[in-house]
Amino acid sequence: MVNQKYLDKAEVLIEALPYIQRFNRKIVVVKYGGSAMLDDELKKNVIKDVVLLKLVGFKPIIVHGGGKEISRWVGKVGMEPKFINGLRVTDKDTMEIAEMVLAKVNKELVAMVESLGVNAVGISGKDGGLLKCRKKQTEGGDIGFVGEVTKVEPKILEDLLEKDFLPIIFPVGYDDNFATYNINADDAACAIAEAVHAEKLAFLSDIEGVYKDKDDPSSLISELHVDEAEKLISDGYVGGGMIPKLKNCIDAIEEGVKRVHILDGRIPHSLLLEIFTNKGIGTAILREDGEKYYNEHE
Amino acid sequence: MVNQKYLDKAEVLIEALPYIQRFNRKIVVVKYGGSAMLDDELKKNVIKDVVLLKLVGFKPIIVHGGGKEISRWVGKVGMEPKFINGLRVTDKDTMEIAEMVLAKVNKELVAMVESLGVNAVGISGKDGGLLKCRKKQTEGGDIGFVGEVTKVEPKILEDLLEKDFLPIIFPVGYDDNFATYNINADDAACAIAEAVHAEKLAFLSDIEGVYKDKDDPSSLISELHVDEAEKLISDGYVGGGMIPKLKNCIDAIEEGVKRVHILDGRIPHSLLLEIFTNKGIGTAILREDGEKYYNEHE
Amino acid sequence: MVNQKYLDKAEVLIEALPYIQRFNRKIVVVKYGGSAMLDDELKKNVIKDVVLLKLVGFKPIIVHGGGKEISRWVGKVGMEPKFINGLRVTDKDTMEIAEMVLAKVNKELVAMVESLGVNAVGISGKDGGLLKCRKKQTEGGDIGFVGEVTKVEPKILEDLLEKDFLPIIFPVGYDDNFATYNINADDAACAIAEAVHAEKLAFLSDIEGVYKDKDDPSSLISELHVDEAEKLISDGYVGGGMIPKLKNCIDAIEEGVKRVHILDGRIPHSLLLEIFTNKGIGTAILREDGEKYYNEHE
Amino acid sequence: MVNQKYLDKAEVLIEALPYIQRFNRKIVVVKYGGSAMLDDELKKNVIKDVVLLKLVGFKPIIVHGGGKEISRWVGKVGMEPKFINGLRVTDKDTMEIAEMVLAKVNKELVAMVESLGVNAVGISGKDGGLLKCRKKQTEGGDIGFVGEVTKVEPKILEDLLEKDFLPIIFPVGYDDNFATYNINADDAACAIAEAVHAEKLAFLSDIEGVYKDKDDPSSLISELHVDEAEKLISDGYVGGGMIPKLKNCIDAIEEGVKRVHILDGRIPHSLLLEIFTNKGIGTAILREDGEKYYNEHE
Amino acid sequence: MVNQKYLDKAEVLIEALPYIQRFNRKIVVVKYGGSAMLDDELKKNVIKDVVLLKLVGFKPIIVHGGGKEISRWVGKVGMEPKFINGLRVTDKDTMEIAEMVLAKVNKELVAMVESLGVNAVGISGKDGGLLKCRKKQTEGGDIGFVGEVTKVEPKILEDLLEKDFLPIIFPVGYDDNFATYNINADDAACAIAEAVHAEKLAFLSDIEGVYKDKDDPSSLISELHVDEAEKLISDGYVGGGMIPKLKNCIDAIEEGVKRVHILDGRIPHSLLLEIFTNKGIGTAILREDGEKYYNEHE
Amino acid sequence: MVNQKYLDKAEVLIEALPYIQRFNRKIVVVKYGGSAMLDDELKKNVIKDVVLLKLVGFKPIIVHGGGKEISRWVGKVGMEPKFINGLRVTDKDTMEIAEMVLAKVNKELVAMVESLGVNAVGISGKDGGLLKCRKKQTEGGDIGFVGEVTKVEPKILEDLLEKDFLPIIFPVGYDDNFATYNINADDAACAIAEAVHAEKLAFLSDIEGVYKDKDDPSSLISELHVDEAEKLISDGYVGGGMIPKLKNCIDAIEEGVKRVHILDGRIPHSLLLEIFTNKGIGTAILREDGEKYYNEHE
Repeated sequence: MVNQKYLDKAEVLIEALPYIQRFNRKIVVVKYGGSAMLDDELKKNVIKDVVLLKLVGFKPIIVHGGGKEISRWVGKVGMEPKFINGLRVTDKDTMEIAEMVLAKVNKELVAMVESLGVNAVGISGKDGGLLKCRKKQTEGGDIGFVGEVTKVEPKILEDLLEKDFLPIIFPVGYDDNFATYNINADDAACAIAEAVHAEKLAFLSDIEGVYKDKDDPSSLISELHVDEAEKLISDGYVGGGMIPKLKNCIDAIEEGVKRVHILDGRIPHSLLLEIFTNKGIGTAILREDGEKYYNEHE
Repeated sequence: MVNQKYLDKAEVLIEALPYIQRFNRKIVVVKYGGSAMLDDELKKNVIKDVVLLKLVGFKPIIVHGGGKEISRWVGKVGMEPKFINGLRVTDKDTMEIAEMVLAKVNKELVAMVESLGVNAVGISGKDGGLLKCRKKQTEGGDIGFVGEVTKVEPKILEDLLEKDFLPIIFPVGYDDNFATYNINADDAACAIAEAVHAEKLAFLSDIEGVYKDKDDPSSLISELHVDEAEKLISDGYVGGGMIPKLKNCIDAIEEGVKRVHILDGRIPHSLLLEIFTNKGIGTAILREDGEKYYNEHE
Repeated sequence: MVNQKYLDKAEVLIEALPYIQRFNRKIVVVKYGGSAMLDDELKKNVIKDVVLLKLVGFKPIIVHGGGKEISRWVGKVGMEPKFINGLRVTDKDTMEIAEMVLAKVNKELVAMVESLGVNAVGISGKDGGLLKCRKKQTEGGDIGFVGEVTKVEPKILEDLLEKDFLPIIFPVGYDDNFATYNINADDAACAIAEAVHAEKLAFLSDIEGVYKDKDDPSSLISELHVDEAEKLISDGYVGGGMIPKLKNCIDAIEEGVKRVHILDGRIPHSLLLEIFTNKGIGTAILREDGEKYYNEHE
Repeated sequence: MVNQKYLDKAEVLIEALPYIQRFNRKIVVVKYGGSAMLDDELKKNVIKDVVLLKLVGFKPIIVHGGGKEISRWVGKVGMEPKFINGLRVTDKDTMEIAEMVLAKVNKELVAMVESLGVNAVGISGKDGGLLKCRKKQTEGGDIGFVGEVTKVEPKILEDLLEKDFLPIIFPVGYDDNFATYNINADDAACAIAEAVHAEKLAFLSDIEGVYKDKDDPSSLISELHVDEAEKLISDGYVGGGMIPKLKNCIDAIEEGVKRVHILDGRIPHSLLLEIFTNKGIGTAILREDGEKYYNEHE
Repeated sequence: MVNQKYLDKAEVLIEALPYIQRFNRKIVVVKYGGSAMLDDELKKNVIKDVVLLKLVGFKPIIVHGGGKEISRWVGKVGMEPKFINGLRVTDKDTMEIAEMVLAKVNKELVAMVESLGVNAVGISGKDGGLLKCRKKQTEGGDIGFVGEVTKVEPKILEDLLEKDFLPIIFPVGYDDNFATYNINADDAACAIAEAVHAEKLAFLSDIEGVYKDKDDPSSLISELHVDEAEKLISDGYVGGGMIPKLKNCIDAIEEGVKRVHILDGRIPHSLLLEIFTNKGIGTAILREDGEKYYNEHE
Repeated sequence: MVNQKYLDKAEVLIEALPYIQRFNRKIVVVKYGGSAMLDDELKKNVIKDVVLLKLVGFKPIIVHGGGKEISRWVGKVGMEPKFINGLRVTDKDTMEIAEMVLAKVNKELVAMVESLGVNAVGISGKDGGLLKCRKKQTEGGDIGFVGEVTKVEPKILEDLLEKDFLPIIFPVGYDDNFATYNINADDAACAIAEAVHAEKLAFLSDIEGVYKDKDDPSSLISELHVDEAEKLISDGYVGGGMIPKLKNCIDAIEEGVKRVHILDGRIPHSLLLEIFTNKGIGTAILREDGEKYYNEHE
């Protein structure tokens, strides 16, 4: 006799059916950063989640940062970090190290995906001219080679997806003079999601999501229409680092991405749970006419 | 906090990863018959299983019989069933009803698959000249329009698979004079699996599998190399209806199918469990050089 | 010396040249019903005509009804036909028999086409989700599972034509709840012709065509512009069963079909003569700006 | 009522069915020369025949000579024809005129095909490097720029057929030094038929066919297996100009062409009758294992 | 040690880089006529230039006239040239000779291109229905079969380019009755360049270009915007044969060609120098918003 | 008048014609290392040469090392280089830095190619599983993560070439356990050239080529058949670092590469001169049946 354990397994797979259908051959951009990059177990989980998405018919793209690795290496070569008004300055030497460290992290992720039997190609924003940028203007002084995206050339991504590769991107690009710039990974993921007409954009970071009341951990909002998100900002309910993140989400929605997720990368398989169950992990931002479908009170 | 229930779900999906990879874009022929066709709940389960296979990247093909429906309709029109030496005679009128009933069952399955959002096309062995046959020679008298396959013309199946349809087939074909014949569904499934170079052929029926000792329910064999299967027959360990079934399995393996399964269709989701877990349901026949991979003593 | 008989044959073939050119790779939908389905000789002629169209480069599609076969089988299983206000009621049992009989007729036509060396695939409106419908509202009571087309999903037809098959369709579809409905074959042919952008739609039935004066057999109209057809209805010149047929013709023209023909299926090869000669058989309805080209007084 | 004349027409078309099927998408090379090029009516007939072949799904290729036109123009420019041992010498000036006249004839045929609504492209053996040749060695003196084919480069023909053009070829090629040579049209047709793997090669000329007894006009042979043809030559039954023609036929069969026809171009529509009826016109040479199918005694 | 000669060669190739990039996969139509057709050395140079364009990634098309060859042959066959108001009359006989001579020149060019290892196909305006025309109306009397282009059917050119052939065209077309007409090669080149959306159209003839002051050889204009060209005509600065040429240029620019060149074919490699250096040879006409980029005072 | 300077330029381009033809659409693998990577001017030249190859129709692939950059960075982070028997040990930390530095150099080359208007994609041997390797066995002790190629998976290169990108590769791969290894760039270039069936493999390094007499600079050998190269080694004429280089060349030739070049990267444009002139730069190794074509005594 087949015992209940196996029947339960079958049920879980069957439950995934409608979600697999909904995203078949759709592009999902995953911004991967924060603590989920530091813990080896979490890292494996994230990569397995993305590989599963690929195997059941999605077209995932990973955009990643370098997190604390960059700071560690800046220290290792004995450089003194410089700051202007509290912002780290990316001078030419720092930029050089940042690019090297990001490339190293990139190849590590490539190898992890390959070890699971899926073909990955790791590229930067320079390859195929993917990310064109210009110097970011900041108040209070020059913070160096920090760029903002001016154009995305998605051909290389379209070609890699067509040829069945999983693209893994680190956000370094060049300006019109082909000088190298570091780009914020959230911004890059957002610009790429728009350019490839992604169905979904997921930010995997150390944030649990958006709260109605930031002091009440039980007030996490599962789903937000884009206009509600804008109101939260203008009404001052969200603050600090959440504002640029939320603005990126809003921007992506307005440029055509269907659903943007702020996910807590510290929860194992949060990406998978988000996509394959009716249990929202973190916060989803959706279009004004988008249907809310999480069962919040389960 | 995400509760354990959800984390367990994620684990089940992750466990399916290697199985999804192994059969990506491979053809799986499912012979569907027996009790699994009579019970509405079991029927839904089977169809959901096949639809899931399709959605995660397999290329399933269903071959089905009509089971007890045919007998019911023969009775309904007031015909007297005829027998010769215990074998039912398929005269011209019976053949006509069989074809009609099979077509009705076929369209019912098509509608079920379509209702799950997957495109299905139901055909018989006549469409696109799929199944050519000749009158089956039986000892002890003429049993009428019962055919044996002489040629499979797989073009229609290749075309439907290329165009992303799930083909559902009922085994009625014609001979060189275009006379209509009924074909045993097991035989048809076997011939089709060979012609389309299927990776896997699964017989979903009312048989639990092959036993080492037919009187000992605990002696079910999970995996059999083809030479072991042949030995079982020659040594007289198996008998009755199992012999032709096992011979079909052996034949399919010899014609290039990688793995053939005898599954108990009365167990819910037996097909899914067979493919997505390391728990063998029923008996698998594999090539002499095939690797046994079930964990039998879990 | 080659005798005149052969030279005459060559002339006939050469005369067909401009007609072959005009419809090269164009889709022609043939609604096949009525007496032409009962007489074996006529049936062979119709199938040969359609096969010839296919071989000389047209893309024909057959839509057929079941005619008197359905009534015969309803009787055979001992069911009492029910009527409401003179309309036959298609209850669940009748629907089941209708589907079975239509499928049987379908496979018979498939086998006839295949026997002439052309690849045919027989499908219903359920396959590939071809015909979506809803319950037809009739005055005076519920006549059961009689549907009207709400949507045609032509992908399966486009795919079969691309792969060089001749599609043969019986008009049974499902509604949004996947319940089975019978659809009038004329209506189905009309909706399909519109969806696949057919060049031509031909109704092969027991009607000779449209008469200027229904009591004068010599007043058959060879060609009618669509506005003339509308005027004939509004002026009350046509009546009875001709009105819905003519409305279907008008509808098809308005949705883009170039020419619609009402042909007498009782005349051997009426379809071929209609297409390959300048002798109109029956009545052609054409667009307001369509050129009349029959030589009526030959 | 439809009169008999029309029904007879339909019958002729229906009779063509199996022949259309047999050659669907097959390449047919037609060597066109002799009287059939001089008479305007015959010319129109030949072109109509070839256009019909194209429209019903064959892939015809025309190879033509210039016939008496070349001699006429050689005279027109006041050149003295030179002869060596009875063979005309193609010196540089003659070659120049021959090429010009052949090109003129070629464009005339192109225009005739185009006027029937089919796309034709006229090329020489120089275009796309179709025909490479070397000087033909003859006994008794140098006869100038007369070439024999050393290589056929079929790419241009394959490309034109793929793009649905009817290629029309005049047999002028070049040698390894790119000097211009005239090539016998029969030889060129034969080499081309072999290179494109033609199903059929038809020589339209002023010869009725092969006779068992050249003095008995009733002894025309309808069909000859290739070994019978060889025996006819070795036994001395055929003579004169027939020998090289027959050798060409034998050569083509041996290189893979299925059937070669010697047709009397003076009979109207001989090509059509040959292909679409069971009445052989002229003589067909077929492979040793080819099936004879003419009804000779009709 | 590598001597300076070789390093200089490398520099020339490197200098060509931006020009090769600019025209990669762009269509360039070259009208080839005048003295450059008479001198054997110049002819070889022109063909080598065009072949180089093809090999480095351009898609060149040659349109050529017959120049003095036609007059020579008209004389050769003893015909008296006829004139009306100073214009040569192209009667039926002259048309016949013109077509023959043009075909001969065409095949000569084809052979030259082939001898350089590039695949060429020579066609007339009749092939594939490329050039449809009508009788040109001239004042002062009927000048015979001189046509003006009414329609270009570019399919044959698109197909040949796709299949990697270099098309070589002589400008003979037919009217609606399929009568043969001679077309001015400049007009034909212009119409073809428009129809295939050429990037560039170059007239290689015996004209050095456009002068500001026709009596001052040093006043050659390197680049002219289309409005400047129109002003030159309306102000009467240019005259004689230059007006129709310039009008053709203006017409082409207005129909979408990016740059039109009037090049002196008597200068060796003028086409190559024009395209691969910043030294304008002759005069370039460009769109009002086109950038002038020649270095005129080098 | 066009001055001589321009005519000379045209001549150089025309001279390149046969070389462009010979390598059209052929793959050329360029191993880039040594001094040519250090000098900015030389670096620009090399990149321009490769870009030109791409633009005129070749399919170049760059494989590069990191040269002195790696040692510089090892020092920068304060690591002590370790040696065993004079061989540098690549421990885990060194491997990490090597990968980072190679990635940095890679992206620099990508940006240089992109700045010239050509699309480049920089990858390592990990991407797409390009280079699988195992630990290199050396006598005298473990030198760490130095790998030798066991398998090349060329799919990613074929895909990038098909999509018109220029692939730039740094030779870091992984073993069966997905551990990272450094691979000698010469070895990697050689293995890749074999796997993609390159026409040509060029080693750009600080070696002038092979000498008949290593003490006589005038004895440089321009072309060597593979058997001659083997003899040079066995006869002891070459020594030191040249032996593994020459062995790589011989290996590549034996695996199907047509011509392998040892080029002095310190000579500007040596790659271009090698390919586009008849002046050999350095030494070419060719197959036993390969034709020597350099003009050595110019």
